[in-house]
Amino acid sequence: MLTYDLSERKGGPIYKFLYQKIKEEIIEGKIKPGERLPSKRALAEQMKVGVITVANAYDLLISEGYVRSEEKRGYFVQDLGSICINGGEPAAFKDELTEHKYLADFRANRMSLHMFPSTVWNRYMREALSLQADSLLETVPYKGLYKLRLAISEYLLQNRGIQVSPSQIIIGAGTEYLYSRLIQLFGRTCTFASEDPGYKKFEAISRGYGNPWEYIPIDDHGLIIDKLEQSDADVIHVSPSNHFPTGIIMPITRRKALLDWANKVKKRYIIEDDYDSEFRYSGQLILPMYAMDSNNKVIYMNTFSKTLVPSIRISYMVLPPALMERYEETMSFYSCTVSSFEQYALAKFISEKHFERHINHMRNYYKKQRKRILSSLKKVPLSEISDVYERGAGTHFLLKVHTRLTEEEIRRVAHEANLAVSLYSDYSDLVNAENQNTLVINYAAIQPERITEVLMRMSEIFPECRE
Amino acid sequence: MLTYDLSERKGGPIYKFLYQKIKEEIIEGKIKPGERLPSKRALAEQMKVGVITVANAYDLLISEGYVRSEEKRGYFVQDLGSICINGGEPAAFKDELTEHKYLADFRANRMSLHMFPSTVWNRYMREALSLQADSLLETVPYKGLYKLRLAISEYLLQNRGIQVSPSQIIIGAGTEYLYSRLIQLFGRTCTFASEDPGYKKFEAISRGYGNPWEYIPIDDHGLIIDKLEQSDADVIHVSPSNHFPTGIIMPITRRKALLDWANKVKKRYIIEDDYDSEFRYSGQLILPMYAMDSNNKVIYMNTFSKTLVPSIRISYMVLPPALMERYEETMSFYSCTVSSFEQYALAKFISEKHFERHINHMRNYYKKQRKRILSSLKKVPLSEISDVYERGAGTHFLLKVHTRLTEEEIRRVAHEANLAVSLYSDYSDLVNAENQNTLVINYAAIQPERITEVLMRMSEIFPECRE
Repeated sequence: MLTYDLSERKGGPIYKFLYQKIKEEIIEGKIKPGERLPSKRALAEQMKVGVITVANAYDLLISEGYVRSEEKRGYFVQDLGSICINGGEPAAFKDELTEHKYLADFRANRMSLHMFPSTVWNRYMREALSLQADSLLETVPYKGLYKLRLAISEYLLQNRGIQVSPSQIIIGAGTEYLYSRLIQLFGRTCTFASEDPGYKKFEAISRGYGNPWEYIPIDDHGLIIDKLEQSDADVIHVSPSNHFPTGIIMPITRRKALLDWANKVKKRYIIEDDYDSEFRYSGQLILPMYAMDSNNKVIYMNTFSKTLVPSIRISYMVLPPALMERYEETMSFYSCTVSSFEQYALAKFISEKHFERHINHMRNYYKKQRKRILSSLKKVPLSEISDVYERGAGTHFLLKVHTRLTEEEIRRVAHEANLAVSLYSDYSDLVNAENQNTLVINYAAIQPERITEVLMRMSEIFPECRE
Repeated sequence: MLTYDLSERKGGPIYKFLYQKIKEEIIEGKIKPGERLPSKRALAEQMKVGVITVANAYDLLISEGYVRSEEKRGYFVQDLGSICINGGEPAAFKDELTEHKYLADFRANRMSLHMFPSTVWNRYMREALSLQADSLLETVPYKGLYKLRLAISEYLLQNRGIQVSPSQIIIGAGTEYLYSRLIQLFGRTCTFASEDPGYKKFEAISRGYGNPWEYIPIDDHGLIIDKLEQSDADVIHVSPSNHFPTGIIMPITRRKALLDWANKVKKRYIIEDDYDSEFRYSGQLILPMYAMDSNNKVIYMNTFSKTLVPSIRISYMVLPPALMERYEETMSFYSCTVSSFEQYALAKFISEKHFERHINHMRNYYKKQRKRILSSLKKVPLSEISDVYERGAGTHFLLKVHTRLTEEEIRRVAHEANLAVSLYSDYSDLVNAENQNTLVINYAAIQPERITEVLMRMSEIFPECRE
């Protein structure tokens, strides 16, 4: 297997020949579903061809859905039974099928794509494209289109109760991009910190810049301020209105203590990530900390990738005036990373209240979905060996499973059962008996009519449910 | 002037009151065109209001075209005679008029917006929007849409003569973004270097990361390899096919020497920025260095922001396999920064040959424009005190002016004459008698029918032409 005679090749590039040969073996069943292909380097050496040639062949196989790539694990043959094989030319988007299609994907970054209000969105995009306005063709102002910043400031005032100037807002292609700008704004000696558990990408980005990093543990009321005081942190990243993944709302006293911490030292700042705050199903609106801050110590951030669709990369941050001045002086040479057409469409989408309506629509949908999944969960064997932790927010809950499986085994058997899961420990370095074997169940992308089937399948991966 | 009685305000936010008052004074001519407004902070103190309130008011004035903001200089009242004032609601895009409108803008980053093939582009954008394909709504693969990477690899093979795999390509929202990724890939101890004169933003980005930086001088054949050998540079940024702003083509011997430099030490790499290489009006196609590199030492980069429109932020880089492996291991957590819809549209635009046609169209246009401006230049007084340096490439030439004005005076009088100019020294730290008072004349955005008028105006700024 996987040694091919290059002399059989009748012209054309080697990678196409290689791709064709492997594809034939997959279709004929000579290479079985789930089988692991040799590494690019190994096959290249064996065939005496370049690594790029093999990479090209594998890319094509992945793009057509014959093979899937798994991070740090290698290349695996897909189960063709579960994929519609097209005899002729690849269908329009088959060449984008680079990810394994799971029966159900509970991972934290998933969302319901069919909720995207594409008709309205497309209308504004068409409008932007047809305007032929020089302002949409010229280099976009580095903070982003004024129209969009104005729409965001009005939205924030009406829906999050905070008053910010459009001149304080910076638009960027995703939150990660804005974190990069912030890290650079604070400089390389600044120690960043985040809640544990929490958003791990900030750590990766921060370490990429070589900045020192700390994690601060949380308790039932969120970030433990004493631990923060004991740390070297200069800038702390928090989600006080909806902590990820626990859903904890930081109470007012602790918010005040956090602001006090920041006010004590000039270089201290708080990054308030308001991600997911739109999805809260019970109780009153939780105001952002930004609203309480009278000393310009809070940077407010949010993204549209979670509330619209992940492929639209638009996030924003609100800087206090002193930081914005520093930004203007040192970083205005960075061009805005978001296309002007999408900024225009989003500005209209927000200012004509479609965004608000969409959020309400999503909130209702997710609320129902949450109810459905929690009630279905009670009826499957899994409920007997697990406890739900949830606080009526976000698109997920925590499920602590009492099992003799290790976390590694859970990941493996879930994957074998064609379920994509994430665990509390994916977001925490402080794993203990209490939070071990705790699944983060994001139900946003689960099809409602399949909930019971999927939860039954989930039950089956645990030996305790089968006994 | 500029003291207003806040008690006159009849409700509504203070910034709107302030904006209204200043606007009235401008319209009534109480504040004169060209007059400088007080700084935000000064006015805030005087009026006893917050800086943000003033910023809001100024932003509105800028957005409606009454005031312009000039980097590091302050806020100036616009000449309303040159702006169409709309009595009622601001026109659709007046709120984006944040930049001063010059009679002519010769700065290096300008281009001809009316050449953008919006009909075809919009067709593909509409197609992308109407597809409703999950692959365009899901998180985009971190390297970018496979379809686009494939189209770029085919374009590079056919038009730049280099063979790269789609798996070697990373798509990003602008070249600056990709430089950030590269700097992080090489790590904080890596010394970056660039040609002097050259692309200064790379220095700014690199210093932002805290990396050491060096400039390497050029001679008539481009980068001086001896100087590079004597430097501490690990990674050098070059534009061998079309050096900016001189248009120098690095000859083959020097390219070989540069590759030899890289091959001597494992950590050495060459970043080949192929920006503007599409615009060469005479002689044969200049192959990229990437084509000569048999040791995987060259990173190839290019952008679509210069060849399409600046507001479409799509650039790409081609990494040698070893670097791509490092990227995959350490940076695949960075989401792609470009919206999937635009990636899809660009993929179709390239693969259906519209990009190639557009480039040819632009090349012809710029070639004519070049001829027009060079021949008009001979007929104005400026020609008597200046020498043209040009090498049939890009959208600019160098104009050395023999004048008693200093560079600072040139900038000031040009600005007063409503001309935007850039100088050689904007791109070089090594200014000497030879390159002093050398204008970089980018003619891409100059309206053909106004060339003579504009060059006459340019002549008038130099006292030698008036004598």
